[in-house]
Amino acid sequence: MKVLAGLTVVPLGVGVSLSQYVAVCERILTEAGLRPQLHANGTNVEGEWDVVFAALRRCHETLHEMGAPRVTTTLQAGTRTDRDQTLEDKVRSVKSKLG
Amino acid sequence: MKVLAGLTVVPLGVGVSLSQYVAVCERILTEAGLRPQLHANGTNVEGEWDVVFAALRRCHETLHEMGAPRVTTTLQAGTRTDRDQTLEDKVRSVKSKLG
Amino acid sequence: MKVLAGLTVVPLGVGVSLSQYVAVCERILTEAGLRPQLHANGTNVEGEWDVVFAALRRCHETLHEMGAPRVTTTLQAGTRTDRDQTLEDKVRSVKSKLG
Amino acid sequence: MKVLAGLTVVPLGVGVSLSQYVAVCERILTEAGLRPQLHANGTNVEGEWDVVFAALRRCHETLHEMGAPRVTTTLQAGTRTDRDQTLEDKVRSVKSKLG
Repeated sequence: MKVLAGLTVVPLGVGVSLSQYVAVCERILTEAGLRPQLHANGTNVEGEWDVVFAALRRCHETLHEMGAPRVTTTLQAGTRTDRDQTLEDKVRSVKSKLG
Repeated sequence: MKVLAGLTVVPLGVGVSLSQYVAVCERILTEAGLRPQLHANGTNVEGEWDVVFAALRRCHETLHEMGAPRVTTTLQAGTRTDRDQTLEDKVRSVKSKLG
Repeated sequence: MKVLAGLTVVPLGVGVSLSQYVAVCERILTEAGLRPQLHANGTNVEGEWDVVFAALRRCHETLHEMGAPRVTTTLQAGTRTDRDQTLEDKVRSVKSKLG
Repeated sequence: MKVLAGLTVVPLGVGVSLSQYVAVCERILTEAGLRPQLHANGTNVEGEWDVVFAALRRCHETLHEMGAPRVTTTLQAGTRTDRDQTLEDKVRSVKSKLG
């Protein structure tokens, strides 16, 4: 089952500068073949359900190894059976309505 | 790796009465041994990472089988290495500060 | 406009023990008349839109005053025009389907 | 107080094609001066707290007027007192770590 997901991974207990942790996670998602699309509040990925959540697990594990005692992820995951849709389709669809 | 998670599963394209779908998902989480704690905006679970996300996958698959063309989940997932913590611990910890 | 909301307020840069901050926020929501319902991953409130978001603003402001350099909130907000619904209604509705 | 926010507004009870509703909300955010940055799972805005949440309220009201009986928003809101930061800063900061 394919999933389109939006992830925000936040390490706690490592101060307020989180970008190095986000970057590591971004690399893990890329290596998993998920072509992450970084934006200001998280990153979007698309792929097989198990691949996405195995990669997210590696993000948590790796951030813990980097010294973060707590890691919290906020995630939106969407699946659909009516048609195949990519991340780009979703943006294009809204933009076409903006005229 | 153990995870404490909060899930809100929303089927789209099936009208506005979603409680029957939420109930099915609640049963799936229970059968997976995750002892879901239902609240007004979702449900909380704790368990092994792979068990939690396999159960959530079954929620999506089952809601699709029930006729929902789209299913969207919003999720918060927390892991920590500094100490073991249960869902009950989190509530108790806040309540002790409320005095 | 009435809103049912689920809030998770997370201060960053203050270590990993967050319950004292959550408790302060819980008190602010109570004083605003929002009858917060604490659970393991956040708290649920219901009230007028402007009251809810003014109270959440006070949570952020107060946590900053307590020393948190960053505060992040994850929130779900639901409004409906088809019928009046309380937080208790939502839980009851699912539980009636669980049999 | 300035806030950086990520919003995902989802109307329920109007079928599965939501892009026209998202586009209306995008226009409301733009007219409020919030310069929304659309991505595949939502939109990012930055602005004064009260302006952001008044605009989001108008999104809910307008989608109800368009016929949606339920509207649900998932939101991440971040404030910080240690330094001024824009949406672009957040992306740039991660990208600089990706090398």
